[in-house]
Amino acid sequence: MDEIHLKAIVKYAHGKGKVELRDVPKPSPGPDEVLIEVKAAGICGSDLHILDGDIELPVRPPVIMGHEFSGIIAEVGSSVTKWKPGDRVTSETSIHTCGECLPCKTGNYNVCAEKRLIGYWFDGAFAKYCVAPSKLIHKLPDNVSFLAGALCEPLACCVNGVVEKTRIDSGDVVVIAGPGPIGLLSTQIAKSQGAYVILCGLPHDEKRLKLGKTLGADMIINVEEEDPWRIVSEITGGSGADVFIECSGSPNAARMGLQMVRRMGQYTQIGLFGRTFSIDFDLVAYKELKVRGSLGQRWTSWNIAVKMLSRGLVKAEPLISDVLPLHEWKIGFEKFRRKEAIKVILKPE
Amino acid sequence: MDEIHLKAIVKYAHGKGKVELRDVPKPSPGPDEVLIEVKAAGICGSDLHILDGDIELPVRPPVIMGHEFSGIIAEVGSSVTKWKPGDRVTSETSIHTCGECLPCKTGNYNVCAEKRLIGYWFDGAFAKYCVAPSKLIHKLPDNVSFLAGALCEPLACCVNGVVEKTRIDSGDVVVIAGPGPIGLLSTQIAKSQGAYVILCGLPHDEKRLKLGKTLGADMIINVEEEDPWRIVSEITGGSGADVFIECSGSPNAARMGLQMVRRMGQYTQIGLFGRTFSIDFDLVAYKELKVRGSLGQRWTSWNIAVKMLSRGLVKAEPLISDVLPLHEWKIGFEKFRRKEAIKVILKPE
Amino acid sequence: MDEIHLKAIVKYAHGKGKVELRDVPKPSPGPDEVLIEVKAAGICGSDLHILDGDIELPVRPPVIMGHEFSGIIAEVGSSVTKWKPGDRVTSETSIHTCGECLPCKTGNYNVCAEKRLIGYWFDGAFAKYCVAPSKLIHKLPDNVSFLAGALCEPLACCVNGVVEKTRIDSGDVVVIAGPGPIGLLSTQIAKSQGAYVILCGLPHDEKRLKLGKTLGADMIINVEEEDPWRIVSEITGGSGADVFIECSGSPNAARMGLQMVRRMGQYTQIGLFGRTFSIDFDLVAYKELKVRGSLGQRWTSWNIAVKMLSRGLVKAEPLISDVLPLHEWKIGFEKFRRKEAIKVILKPE
Amino acid sequence: MDEIHLKAIVKYAHGKGKVELRDVPKPSPGPDEVLIEVKAAGICGSDLHILDGDIELPVRPPVIMGHEFSGIIAEVGSSVTKWKPGDRVTSETSIHTCGECLPCKTGNYNVCAEKRLIGYWFDGAFAKYCVAPSKLIHKLPDNVSFLAGALCEPLACCVNGVVEKTRIDSGDVVVIAGPGPIGLLSTQIAKSQGAYVILCGLPHDEKRLKLGKTLGADMIINVEEEDPWRIVSEITGGSGADVFIECSGSPNAARMGLQMVRRMGQYTQIGLFGRTFSIDFDLVAYKELKVRGSLGQRWTSWNIAVKMLSRGLVKAEPLISDVLPLHEWKIGFEKFRRKEAIKVILKPE
Repeated sequence: MDEIHLKAIVKYAHGKGKVELRDVPKPSPGPDEVLIEVKAAGICGSDLHILDGDIELPVRPPVIMGHEFSGIIAEVGSSVTKWKPGDRVTSETSIHTCGECLPCKTGNYNVCAEKRLIGYWFDGAFAKYCVAPSKLIHKLPDNVSFLAGALCEPLACCVNGVVEKTRIDSGDVVVIAGPGPIGLLSTQIAKSQGAYVILCGLPHDEKRLKLGKTLGADMIINVEEEDPWRIVSEITGGSGADVFIECSGSPNAARMGLQMVRRMGQYTQIGLFGRTFSIDFDLVAYKELKVRGSLGQRWTSWNIAVKMLSRGLVKAEPLISDVLPLHEWKIGFEKFRRKEAIKVILKPE
Repeated sequence: MDEIHLKAIVKYAHGKGKVELRDVPKPSPGPDEVLIEVKAAGICGSDLHILDGDIELPVRPPVIMGHEFSGIIAEVGSSVTKWKPGDRVTSETSIHTCGECLPCKTGNYNVCAEKRLIGYWFDGAFAKYCVAPSKLIHKLPDNVSFLAGALCEPLACCVNGVVEKTRIDSGDVVVIAGPGPIGLLSTQIAKSQGAYVILCGLPHDEKRLKLGKTLGADMIINVEEEDPWRIVSEITGGSGADVFIECSGSPNAARMGLQMVRRMGQYTQIGLFGRTFSIDFDLVAYKELKVRGSLGQRWTSWNIAVKMLSRGLVKAEPLISDVLPLHEWKIGFEKFRRKEAIKVILKPE
Repeated sequence: MDEIHLKAIVKYAHGKGKVELRDVPKPSPGPDEVLIEVKAAGICGSDLHILDGDIELPVRPPVIMGHEFSGIIAEVGSSVTKWKPGDRVTSETSIHTCGECLPCKTGNYNVCAEKRLIGYWFDGAFAKYCVAPSKLIHKLPDNVSFLAGALCEPLACCVNGVVEKTRIDSGDVVVIAGPGPIGLLSTQIAKSQGAYVILCGLPHDEKRLKLGKTLGADMIINVEEEDPWRIVSEITGGSGADVFIECSGSPNAARMGLQMVRRMGQYTQIGLFGRTFSIDFDLVAYKELKVRGSLGQRWTSWNIAVKMLSRGLVKAEPLISDVLPLHEWKIGFEKFRRKEAIKVILKPE
Repeated sequence: MDEIHLKAIVKYAHGKGKVELRDVPKPSPGPDEVLIEVKAAGICGSDLHILDGDIELPVRPPVIMGHEFSGIIAEVGSSVTKWKPGDRVTSETSIHTCGECLPCKTGNYNVCAEKRLIGYWFDGAFAKYCVAPSKLIHKLPDNVSFLAGALCEPLACCVNGVVEKTRIDSGDVVVIAGPGPIGLLSTQIAKSQGAYVILCGLPHDEKRLKLGKTLGADMIINVEEEDPWRIVSEITGGSGADVFIECSGSPNAARMGLQMVRRMGQYTQIGLFGRTFSIDFDLVAYKELKVRGSLGQRWTSWNIAVKMLSRGLVKAEPLISDVLPLHEWKIGFEKFRRKEAIKVILKPE
């Protein structure tokens, strides 16, 4: 029998570039795996880093990229009883974790030191088919489209940070820095919990800030044109924001956050900086802050993310600025790099 | 009637030095205050800063210094019913707070922006008598000496950080940086909660580290002679410390703490740095750390501190290296500055 | 000078009835108090108990009743600087608390053993004027009407239970028992936090259940006509409700709640039962439940309640079924007793 | 090859009795399992219920009983790399759990609805050999004896209740009801966290109460001879115990606990009652209690339990009153039933 071949976007070696559209064999699911026909796969900021090879990530070339996706189960492994062909699904990404460490034993495998991801270490979803372990699959409710389903992964990252690591009470003033997909989803989550949300960005974020406003932000601030502390101070009677969510990975945003959060307030870090930088760490003690970090997502994050999409608490589709066929991947990557796009979805042919 | 005069250590003007032993009138308690005959008053690191005028503190000269003390009630104000002359007591230090902010409304007045302290803004305890509001007084149990009672204030600071801001479970590995009075009291608190405690210091801390060992630290590390990460890694099977308590105010200690705490671990900041510095803030997100800050103490901290002394869970007297009469205050300040002393107690004549 | 007299509803002696409309002198504020011209005052379930004298409450006759109210400051005491005549306000109710116990020291004076309330022990708001301590006053934002402001007190009770004692995550299934004012406000709070809310009641609650639906409940259940467990089980895939909020004070509701909440779920008690009753307490251990109790409200509850009204997260006015002049108080009490009314507001003439 | 036979205590059918010492074949480990040579196995209260068939438990006869044990690995399955023959170990007991529910996904499989235990549903440790899944095995440190190791299971149950479900601060007054093995281990855990521990029992518990005193209880109370509330009230200045841990499964103890815990205090339920009973549930709301339930143990509980034994924070051996050869099991069961024994250990020949 002839092997079936598919088009896939492959990082074929370490270093800059080294990504191309290739023919690859159709994969088969192992006993505990499912084969998914990919319907939509999003381009993430880390995909740009994998393309550029500019920061150290646990990538194992040659590997098919793509870790934000949705699809239909095409085939199930011999031991799988929970899923069947035709099921509409999305998948978590932590294919390998050690299973032995404290984080793993408590379901927090997203911080396992041995975590290896689909689309990084294991073949991913920038292809017509991919395989994933049965235990990582989440059902896509009927009222959640494949396009929205492809955003479950970034939404679950935000659920981890905004819901699981932070406690927002109704009426809290929540400042969110960085209006990219993570900030825009976090804005909606905070709104769904009764917060007054102020979304901050830079001049080149204008389009994204406006979308944030449409998606529920009570106020948007271009921090180069307006003084965010003056505004937050005015809204909070001088005390500062109850919660600050850092989604930009910018040192200036981190510094701003520590300054503008109120005494006994919460600061949650979702963005990554990729470098050391100086901060006024005394603010942590001086204001008795609660600083939490959030990395990726675990089962509970996905469970909440899917419910939020299904109940309409978060709208994912408005973030999708571009839907392109797989072979136009370069166009998608570059539009995203230039911030012309917000979220780009690739559709395998 | 002739006014009675007392000797007192007075910061008489802003700036370097500007401290002297002066004759001051004996104070009288207001309606809601008590007059305390001071039996023992400790010299704190911040007293050195008030003397040197090297960092900005809310000080209002001329003011009698001294904010860590114990004594006997000599007289009570007209509205005071809870206390009577002869009661052995110690006092909290936050004489003025706004009463209106969220921290004040929840008993966390230690982070009120308007907090003004005894010995800084209001006359303190480096004198034979001082007054304090009735509501800030805590009874000294019979089995707690005046000397130990003078350490309630720093102990309450540690209770805030180690008990109220941190959750230590039996068997946790807790690393404490900085073996000064705060670190030595924190060591004992952590031990009383079932922790395995590693106390870290520098070469000039040798005497203090040894005292830490006597007071229960399971291990002491001179971080310039031994590699603390290697040791912690060995003890924890490579995962890192469950809890890190920063009591030194040293940027290097902060950096070390973020490095050596385990994934999902706790980092608590008690020390103050007095400057910005660079850190690898990505570790907060990457390991999903819980970072908390602790500043001073509130009623609950004092309540626990007094119970711990009374039940023998913490021994304060071994920290007292020197007991001096009030007029030898300069000797005490300098021994403390040179780290020849650990805790110096002044006794008014 | 002639004393000014006002009409007021007075509980003039212990026992059944013993309530009448009386002429009383206009009160004057003490140094730390404000005089409020009452604009709206709600009838609460406990007012019926005070009228009937059927359960033991800390009431001190003769006393003017009324503890849910809003109004305008008419006069301020000599020491009051924060408020001025003309300010639109509402007031907390815990006039006296001991100030010395752990709850008081942490701002949780609502559980102080010595708590004495306005309208119970101190003259209340069923009169043209009443006085209250300055520190208990909350400003009514311009966009909150006096009618809505009179519901701040019950809303703050719900904030205590639903926000401060419970943690609702977006997408949680929350079951609320008892569609009275407390249940209807709790429904809206839970909705504002992203919950799927199921409101349960009895056949005589039909009108209230329908109002609950209008106010946002995703589902309403008459528990005598439908099987609530069957419904909750279906919605939650057999696992049970994430959160159960008991607002009815009915033993059957408590039993139902312990049964229908999921493993590791939360059960919060707001209603009072007034008697012992049998439950299957093993469910608490068997499902590792988190059971919390909530009593009245503290400053933080009021702070959140006022923000929720101002931001439109909760609508109070739809609960107000009847607005009556003060002298028609008997009609109001009886309509409320017969559940013809939901919330009755009395307006002093 | 001849099959090797072992002696084992087998529950061979449902109902009263139906337990006997039988010859059974030596088991072989599956690919992910280990074969353990049992060195010590404890008799638990639930073993009496399995013998008596008096309460409904998930038991699947014929099954070898015994779920508290320690031993040496004799053989490892083909996929096991973490363990090797000769390793000194103990094993968790939750052999089967669903793996799909929220508790399972967060490491709280001890409350999985499908949980099936070793010694109940799967062959247990009242035999020379037993098998257990590799992932449930915990290493016994060299300084923990096999006898102590057999108490890891009940100790982990106590860690779940006292450490994981309760927060004990240094100096807290903790009342523990029921001085059986669970109460005696809980006493030691609470002591290791700096608590003042009051252990309560009945007249027939005299021997156990005395042992509790030896193991660190600050006070023991025979509740039929002394009034526990009077004592607790005296020690706490009238406010009540900070924490109550119910280990007896007695309704009277539960009622006592709700009464004697302070406002905002913690009540943790470890014992099971096996029936409904009436309580004053209003106390939960009236005092704003935190009531938590605890069932069995999870990986984290075992991890802490083993550390506590190794660090000497808990002494398990003093609880062992009797060590008997396996064939004298009836003697052991009956001594335990009559409370002549505290913990009985069976040793396979």
